[in-house]
Amino acid sequence: MDWISKGFLILLVILVTYLYNLSQKVPDLPEFEDTWWGVGKEQYNEESDITPFKISLNDKDLHKQLSSYKITQSLDGTNHEYGINTNLLEDIIEHWHKDYNWTQRKKYLNKFPQFTVKVQGLKIHFIRLSPKIDPTRPPPSVLPLMLLHGWPSSVREFYDVIPLLNQHKPGVNFVFDIIVPSLPNSGFSDATRKPGLGLIEHSVLLKNFMLKLGFPKFYVHGGDWGAAIAQTIATLYPDHLFGIHSTRCLVNRYSDFKIMMFSLVPSLIIAKEKTHKLYPVLDKVKFLLSNFGYLHMQAHKPDAIGVALNDSPVGLAAYILDKFIESSDVMLKDGGLKNSYKFDALIDNLMIYWVTGKITNSMRIFAETFNKRNFDYQLDLIPTEVPTACTRFTQDIFYYPETILMDKFFKLVHINDLDVGHFPGYENPELLAQEIWKAINRIEEVLRVEEIYHVHLLKKITWLGPSDREHWLAEK
Amino acid sequence: MDWISKGFLILLVILVTYLYNLSQKVPDLPEFEDTWWGVGKEQYNEESDITPFKISLNDKDLHKQLSSYKITQSLDGTNHEYGINTNLLEDIIEHWHKDYNWTQRKKYLNKFPQFTVKVQGLKIHFIRLSPKIDPTRPPPSVLPLMLLHGWPSSVREFYDVIPLLNQHKPGVNFVFDIIVPSLPNSGFSDATRKPGLGLIEHSVLLKNFMLKLGFPKFYVHGGDWGAAIAQTIATLYPDHLFGIHSTRCLVNRYSDFKIMMFSLVPSLIIAKEKTHKLYPVLDKVKFLLSNFGYLHMQAHKPDAIGVALNDSPVGLAAYILDKFIESSDVMLKDGGLKNSYKFDALIDNLMIYWVTGKITNSMRIFAETFNKRNFDYQLDLIPTEVPTACTRFTQDIFYYPETILMDKFFKLVHINDLDVGHFPGYENPELLAQEIWKAINRIEEVLRVEEIYHVHLLKKITWLGPSDREHWLAEK
Repeated sequence: MDWISKGFLILLVILVTYLYNLSQKVPDLPEFEDTWWGVGKEQYNEESDITPFKISLNDKDLHKQLSSYKITQSLDGTNHEYGINTNLLEDIIEHWHKDYNWTQRKKYLNKFPQFTVKVQGLKIHFIRLSPKIDPTRPPPSVLPLMLLHGWPSSVREFYDVIPLLNQHKPGVNFVFDIIVPSLPNSGFSDATRKPGLGLIEHSVLLKNFMLKLGFPKFYVHGGDWGAAIAQTIATLYPDHLFGIHSTRCLVNRYSDFKIMMFSLVPSLIIAKEKTHKLYPVLDKVKFLLSNFGYLHMQAHKPDAIGVALNDSPVGLAAYILDKFIESSDVMLKDGGLKNSYKFDALIDNLMIYWVTGKITNSMRIFAETFNKRNFDYQLDLIPTEVPTACTRFTQDIFYYPETILMDKFFKLVHINDLDVGHFPGYENPELLAQEIWKAINRIEEVLRVEEIYHVHLLKKITWLGPSDREHWLAEK
Repeated sequence: MDWISKGFLILLVILVTYLYNLSQKVPDLPEFEDTWWGVGKEQYNEESDITPFKISLNDKDLHKQLSSYKITQSLDGTNHEYGINTNLLEDIIEHWHKDYNWTQRKKYLNKFPQFTVKVQGLKIHFIRLSPKIDPTRPPPSVLPLMLLHGWPSSVREFYDVIPLLNQHKPGVNFVFDIIVPSLPNSGFSDATRKPGLGLIEHSVLLKNFMLKLGFPKFYVHGGDWGAAIAQTIATLYPDHLFGIHSTRCLVNRYSDFKIMMFSLVPSLIIAKEKTHKLYPVLDKVKFLLSNFGYLHMQAHKPDAIGVALNDSPVGLAAYILDKFIESSDVMLKDGGLKNSYKFDALIDNLMIYWVTGKITNSMRIFAETFNKRNFDYQLDLIPTEVPTACTRFTQDIFYYPETILMDKFFKLVHINDLDVGHFPGYENPELLAQEIWKAINRIEEVLRVEEIYHVHLLKKITWLGPSDREHWLAEK
C-alpha cells in the first residue's frame, strides 16, 4: 500500500465519520409565505377567475431574421463537440423558415383546452383535459395529475403524452384529470419583475395553483426542473400530494460523497450489472464538467447571455438544441435529432420561447436557486414520505442507485431504467406515458394496502446510521 | 482540538508531502511543430510579404438591428448581478446607434500604420509603429516590443497606450519598436477552420510571426490571454525573448493547493498588509465561481453561445460589457463604466468583433486550451528563466504573492500592485504605459548587470524543497 492509498484511507475514515454524524440530523421544515410576484404591492382581492386561453401571438420579424443571419461555420471535421454544428443548424433554420407554418402550428398547439388563472400576482397558463366518464361503466376514481416541464422545454413536451394518459385503461380503476401549466417565467405564463423566484418559490406557487383549481390533493409528474419542483412540493407540502413520479429524482448534498466513498466497494450500493452507470465516478464528473457550462453561466448571469438569445432566433435555436443534442449524441452528424425527434416538435418548443420572449426570464430560475439563501434551507436533507416513483434514463445526467435515492425518498415505491434521454416527452411519448401509468398504479396500490416497500429496503443500510431518520419516520 | 481540525492536519501533512514530491519534478520541454492553420494542405512556398492594411469593413445592417431589438427588462431593484442591467445597456445601444459614427471611428482606428503577414497559413493583422530616431542625440537601443491583447478585447486596448510608449523618455537609453497583432481567430487576423488552435499553438504562431517580421529576439507585454501567450512563449522559446511584462502572471497547478495550505500561517507567503488580497481563500473561490460561468461555457461549447452573439449586436454588447463591469463594480448603477471607460472606446472594441464576425472564433481558444491534450504537456510546471515583470491589479481575478509567482518565474525582476481592473489599456492607459516602461527598464538593468533578483528570493523558500529546481537553473 503506497502513501497515496494510505492518505486516501485516512480521508475515507474522516468522511465516514462526517457522514455518520450528518445522517443523524434532519433540519426543521421551514415555512414559506405566499410571496406576491405581480406588479406593485400585494392585492388581497386578486381575481381568481379561470379564463379560457388561446395562443395568438404572431411571429412578427421572425422570417426576416431567419433569412438574413450571421453565422460562423463549424470547425472542419467536427460534429457537435463545440456546440451545434452549423450544417445541422442551417438545415433546421431552413426548415423553420420554409416549411414550418406558425399559423398551422398554432392550431395544433391550441388543440387542448387552455386557461389562465392568477396565482400570487402572476397569470399562470395551463392546459386542462378532464376525463370523459363512460356512463356505461362503473365510475372510476378521478386522479388530478399535474405534468411539469423543465428547461429549456415547455408544455409542448407533453402534447404527445396527454392523449395517451387521457383514456380509460383496461384493468385500471382510475382516470386522470390532466393539468399542464407553463412554469411561471416561462411560456404563456406571466414572468415576474421581482428577484427571488427560485425552485422553492416555484413549488409554493404551483401548489397554490393546484389549490386554486380546487385540488387539495393531487399527483405530480415532473422532468428536469419540473422534477425538482415535484419533489420540493413533496418535501414542503406532503399533505397535498398522493404521490409523485419523477424522471430526475435528486438526492441530498452528501450523496455524491457517499458515491465516491463506495467506489472502493461498489457492490455495497449498486447491482453489478449497473455499476458502469455510476463508476468510475471521474468519468461522470468529467461528463458533468463538460456539459454544465450553460448551467454555471445561468446560475450566475442568465441576463448576460439572455439578451443575445432573445434577440436572435437562430442563436436561440443553437443554444436550446445544444441541450437536446447533448441528451442524444454529440458525435453523430445529426446529433441524434433526426432519429429521435420531429423537427416540428423541436421548433414548436423554440417558438414558445421566441414569440413569448421568455428565454431570459426562464433561465433566471438557475440564478434564483443556486445561491446561499436556498442552500441554507437544507431542504435536500429533509426526507419526503410522499410515495415516490423514480424513472432513470440511459442518456441522462447522473445515475442514482436505489440505496442512494432512499436517503431522500423514504417511500420509494417504483424504480425503473429506460433507454431514452433527458427529454422523454419528445423522444418517446409512448414510453413516458406507459411509465406514468405504471408509477401511479403502483402508488395507488401502496396507498390502498399501506404496503411500504421502503421500510423493507431501509433495513439494508441501517448500519449507515439512519436511526434518527427511522425515528423521524415513526413520528409521522 | 476537535476532530475536524485533526482531520485537516492529517490532510495537511499528506498535501505537504505530495507537494514536496512534485516540487522536485520538472517535465521535459516538449517540441511543437509549425502547424498549418490555413485552408487546405500546407503550402511551403507561403508568401511572406508584409502588406499594408486599412480597416475598411462596413457595418451593413447594424443600425437596423440596433433600432429594433428584443430585450427583457432587468429585475426591479437590481444592478448588474444577473448580467448587465438593461437601463445601462439601452443607454449604450442608443449611443452606439445615434452618436457613434463608424466612418469617423474607422479613421481613428486606421491612424497607426497597419499591415498583414501570412504565418502558418493565416494572415495576421498588426499595427507597427517604429520609433523616430532623433538625429541630434546619441543613438538609443531599439527594443522590439509586442503588445498582446486578450479576450474579449482587441488591438483597440492599446490605442491610448501606443503613443505613450512611442516616445523618447528622458534618462532612458532605449526606444520601442511597437508591434500589436490581432490574435489569430480575432479582430482583423484570419480565423482557422481547423480544430486545435489553443494557447500553445497561439504561442508558436506569434513567435513565428515575430521571426517573420525579422525579430529574432524581442519583448512581449500581455494581458489576459495575451499574458498567457507571453509566458508560454517564455517557457517554450526563452532564447527568442529579452523578457516579458505580464498583467496576469499565471503560476502552476499546485499553487492553489499551496495557497490553501498556507491559509493556516499566511505570513509565511504574503506580507501582512496584503493578506486580505488572498485570504480567506473561500471568498476568492466564491468570486471565481460566480464570475467564471462564461469561462466554463466557452471552455466546452463556444459555438453554442457564439451563434447568438454573432447574430445580435445588442446581445454581443451585453455579453462583452458584462466582463468590463465585472472588472469594475457590478453593484454600481453604471457598473463603473461611466467613470473608468469611454463609451466610444468600448464600442470600438465591440465593433471589431461585430464587423469581422469573429466572436465565435475568438472564444474557441478556451475550448482549445482547457482540455486534456494541453494539460498533459504540464507546461505550467516548467519554470521560465526569462526575466519577468508582473503587475497585479486590485480588481483582477486572482492575486498571487511573490513567493507563489516564483514557482514559475525564476527571474522575477519586477512586481507591482496597481489600483485598476482587468482591462488597464482602456481604464488607465497612462498607468499601464508607465508600468511597461518601468518593467522593461528593470529587465534591461538586470540583463546588463546580470543581477538576478530571484536567487536572493528563492533562498527564503528553500525549505519547501526546490533543490532540483536550483539544479535545473544551475544547468542553464
